[in-house]
Amino acid sequence: MGAVTERAPKQDRSRATRQRILEAAVACLAEHGWSGSTVAVVCTRAGVSRGAAQHHFRTREELFTAAIAHVAEQWLTAVRERARALPREGPDRTYAVVDMLVAVHTGPLFRAALHLWVAAGEEEALRPRVTALESRIGREAHRLAVDVLGADEGRPGVRETVQGILDMARGLGLANLLSDDSARRGRIVRQWSRMLDAELRATAQG
Amino acid sequence: MGAVTERAPKQDRSRATRQRILEAAVACLAEHGWSGSTVAVVCTRAGVSRGAAQHHFRTREELFTAAIAHVAEQWLTAVRERARALPREGPDRTYAVVDMLVAVHTGPLFRAALHLWVAAGEEEALRPRVTALESRIGREAHRLAVDVLGADEGRPGVRETVQGILDMARGLGLANLLSDDSARRGRIVRQWSRMLDAELRATAQG
Repeated sequence: MGAVTERAPKQDRSRATRQRILEAAVACLAEHGWSGSTVAVVCTRAGVSRGAAQHHFRTREELFTAAIAHVAEQWLTAVRERARALPREGPDRTYAVVDMLVAVHTGPLFRAALHLWVAAGEEEALRPRVTALESRIGREAHRLAVDVLGADEGRPGVRETVQGILDMARGLGLANLLSDDSARRGRIVRQWSRMLDAELRATAQG
Repeated sequence: MGAVTERAPKQDRSRATRQRILEAAVACLAEHGWSGSTVAVVCTRAGVSRGAAQHHFRTREELFTAAIAHVAEQWLTAVRERARALPREGPDRTYAVVDMLVAVHTGPLFRAALHLWVAAGEEEALRPRVTALESRIGREAHRLAVDVLGADEGRPGVRETVQGILDMARGLGLANLLSDDSARRGRIVRQWSRMLDAELRATAQG
């Protein structure tokens, strides 16, 4: 009994340390870019020893890829949860969903991911990991968008309509990188969610 | 007379050297990213002396910002020219225009610009220049898109509809960074140019 109760808190502590490292890694990437994000910088930020980080992640590439994956998973879960509180259907729901999808692309997770994507274009050690990660997050974000929009992908064009919204969200994230683009973005989100809603309704009836 | 005829070829040579440097700078950025793009690397690629580059550009930041501006101007002019050969209106024109707008975002110019944008997020010396450049290119690309689509921005929602297409194009550029996304992209361009065309027609009649 003693051994079991002691092991549980130890596992909890290890999991908490891992999470602290992952969250510090995303914050570092978002603020300092890839070249400024060393394992040492992350350890200082997370308040953990270098040894603790090495226990969880063998390489810098593994650490940062895991960090983006972790925070992306948290975001996907949060969107699913928040979508339950939205109106069940109609233009208001469509608007709220598009707004949520766009919001994540203008926050620190997207900024961090962007640094990792761009660095992966130059660094062979990073590219295969990041390519696989990007493709996985892309698929999951698409699945999420289809689900929370209640879109029927069996209908022609619906898949591409939803994908285009996610690509637009990425573009809006880029446009927000150097300056506050929120006023323009708000108007685009309103107009495009209206177009999306009309298209999904027309397709559902057609 | 002698002095005048000698000066003209000298100016031509200087202009040609400047252009060679600018084009080499964009190619370097696209291939090696910001950290791998030094003035020395650009000079070697352009086949010019360091002195020649310094004659035209005082700093590395000035050189690369001028390079993106130069190639973006060339691209804007090329799109205007190619648009003259398209059908005058209708879905085929809309499709061809969207296809052209998206195409540039998946080529070396976008890749180079992306490296510069992301680096500007980290480097104070680069940020004001790149922010001003991004905003100028963004405005000109928007003006171009409105013109070649024959869109009437006096009608409600039209401005945001066209802006969203350019943001989608940027997002499609990002999605193409690490892997060939052309098949998926082709389907999205087809679907969204159809939706764009319907929206512009509906607004023009409304």
